[in-house]
Amino acid sequence: MQVNGKQYRAVWWDDGVVKYVDQRLIPYRFEVAEARTLAQVADAIITMGVRGAPTIGVMAAYGMALAAEQGDDLAAAYRTLAETRPTAVNLKVGLDRVMGDDAAQILSDAREFDESEVAAAEAIGDHGNKLIVPNAKILTHCNTGWLAAQDWGTAAAVIFKAQRAGKNPFVFASETRPRLQGSRLTAWEMTNEGVDHVVIADSASALLMSRGEIDVVITGADRIAANGDTANKIGTYSHALAAKAHGVPFYIAAPKSTIDLGTPTGSDIEIEERDEDEVLSVRGVDSDGILRSVRIASSESGARNPAFDVTPADLIAGIITESGVVQPSIKAIFAHLE
Amino acid sequence: MQVNGKQYRAVWWDDGVVKYVDQRLIPYRFEVAEARTLAQVADAIITMGVRGAPTIGVMAAYGMALAAEQGDDLAAAYRTLAETRPTAVNLKVGLDRVMGDDAAQILSDAREFDESEVAAAEAIGDHGNKLIVPNAKILTHCNTGWLAAQDWGTAAAVIFKAQRAGKNPFVFASETRPRLQGSRLTAWEMTNEGVDHVVIADSASALLMSRGEIDVVITGADRIAANGDTANKIGTYSHALAAKAHGVPFYIAAPKSTIDLGTPTGSDIEIEERDEDEVLSVRGVDSDGILRSVRIASSESGARNPAFDVTPADLIAGIITESGVVQPSIKAIFAHLE
Repeated sequence: MQVNGKQYRAVWWDDGVVKYVDQRLIPYRFEVAEARTLAQVADAIITMGVRGAPTIGVMAAYGMALAAEQGDDLAAAYRTLAETRPTAVNLKVGLDRVMGDDAAQILSDAREFDESEVAAAEAIGDHGNKLIVPNAKILTHCNTGWLAAQDWGTAAAVIFKAQRAGKNPFVFASETRPRLQGSRLTAWEMTNEGVDHVVIADSASALLMSRGEIDVVITGADRIAANGDTANKIGTYSHALAAKAHGVPFYIAAPKSTIDLGTPTGSDIEIEERDEDEVLSVRGVDSDGILRSVRIASSESGARNPAFDVTPADLIAGIITESGVVQPSIKAIFAHLE
Repeated sequence: MQVNGKQYRAVWWDDGVVKYVDQRLIPYRFEVAEARTLAQVADAIITMGVRGAPTIGVMAAYGMALAAEQGDDLAAAYRTLAETRPTAVNLKVGLDRVMGDDAAQILSDAREFDESEVAAAEAIGDHGNKLIVPNAKILTHCNTGWLAAQDWGTAAAVIFKAQRAGKNPFVFASETRPRLQGSRLTAWEMTNEGVDHVVIADSASALLMSRGEIDVVITGADRIAANGDTANKIGTYSHALAAKAHGVPFYIAAPKSTIDLGTPTGSDIEIEERDEDEVLSVRGVDSDGILRSVRIASSESGARNPAFDVTPADLIAGIITESGVVQPSIKAIFAHLE
């Protein structure tokens, strides 16, 4: 992804430092942040400076490289990083790809994992693009572009490939409360890629589908169970229910590293609950361009903030991976991964 | 409703002035605003200083009283007020209840309509309360308390009556993007009534239902078609789809004035589209208590902002009116209104 004419990935290794685009500040500011210790890597993931299932997998792998170079206890480092966020399986996949005790080897493995995720994302885009008709009106949720998946994306990679193929897709970016990854990150990425789009409230998708205004839904995934049940950002399930009610195909786009054969069904996926302040307050820029946090709820009320939900396999038309499109059934998924 | 020990309605007539609680400022500030001209009445409705289907019906009736007292052209006044918001039928019902050309009679009719709506709301609460079991976990959307319906509410009246009956209900108030009537107004009203509650993102309801955390859904309505299809705040339909998927009963609570026999089905209801800035920016208080508007979306992106959606009758377990609970079918509804 080019930003101001320069090529970026969401996270990268730079001579003993893990650098990342601080996603908490996009689209208000573009800032490259640095993690110089294991604790700083973990903190960047926990606070969502770095987010997106594939990207946090790569971040965790580079975190292990940093820990190894600094002589940290690697078993403890593994545990620290594995506990930063519980739902996305890519985090554990990234850690498992860099098991070992030689710092140079760990860094080499992390770089290889990084490259393989980037290649997977581009292949997801190519496979998914075959499903997109000219002038398709596409609903997507949360952020699944290069910020979420290093250099291309998952669901957004499909959109970017359709755009570059001249299909002129139109995107409804659901804002994705509470952290607004849709209105902040996806909208910004669509502008950068020249894709025509609008932001909508998450709850507007069902009405738009009932009017025939949406042709297809594509989202990413944080963990896909062996039977095809899929955990993704809170709100995905509601879009899938509306799509089912209106005969709109609903696709998941994710690298094979997101499929967790060790998780039999969606009910086995741990759903992260995050701080209530994410619901009760929002951050944005005022008319002077100053970034401010404002409380948007009654002062004596609390909130619940589950960060993910699970879409049952029977609502999913197909899972787009780097190897093609797989039906969400345990048999097809096992065959797909062989 | 008591606020700081004083009894208030959402709007009232005070010696030739229409006064109202400015709902744009709740919960940050409690301010009584004044409409001294027809234009100011219309503006208060358009900008949602006064909102909630039953409340805007009463506001429109007092607006006609004001127009009559000031010698305005009453046919023009009717048109001006009728056009302020297209979806809620109560607005037209309020106007139709005060047809005439004598200022004193119009004011008297407006007061009578006001009282009848308040009485209807309390009766809705009593009828709905019979459906609520002790310790029920209730999801509600948007705001349906005394701000929306003068003195009791519709869906919220059911909750308030259950609370006063010692049933200890627990409320999930979905925040209701984009205008946040749930996190601002409903949460504030629940605190005032001592009802235990949390705010959730609109998109979190499906996950919570899949876990059995919600027993019943009750929302208000802006217009109920003759066949039971119901227009209500955007997001209602998504909650109803999730409720259907999980066997959670979904009720509408509304006065009979919300049922429009002149609208055969939901597809005949005009859905208001409001300004995109309501999606792209939010208003809240900063850490110094200063009310600020901040932009929460990428600066070069636009938005779509449909303000209502339509829940098909087959997703609705029953409609709670001041006369009891009616099944959402054309036959039952006609019989109910006789």
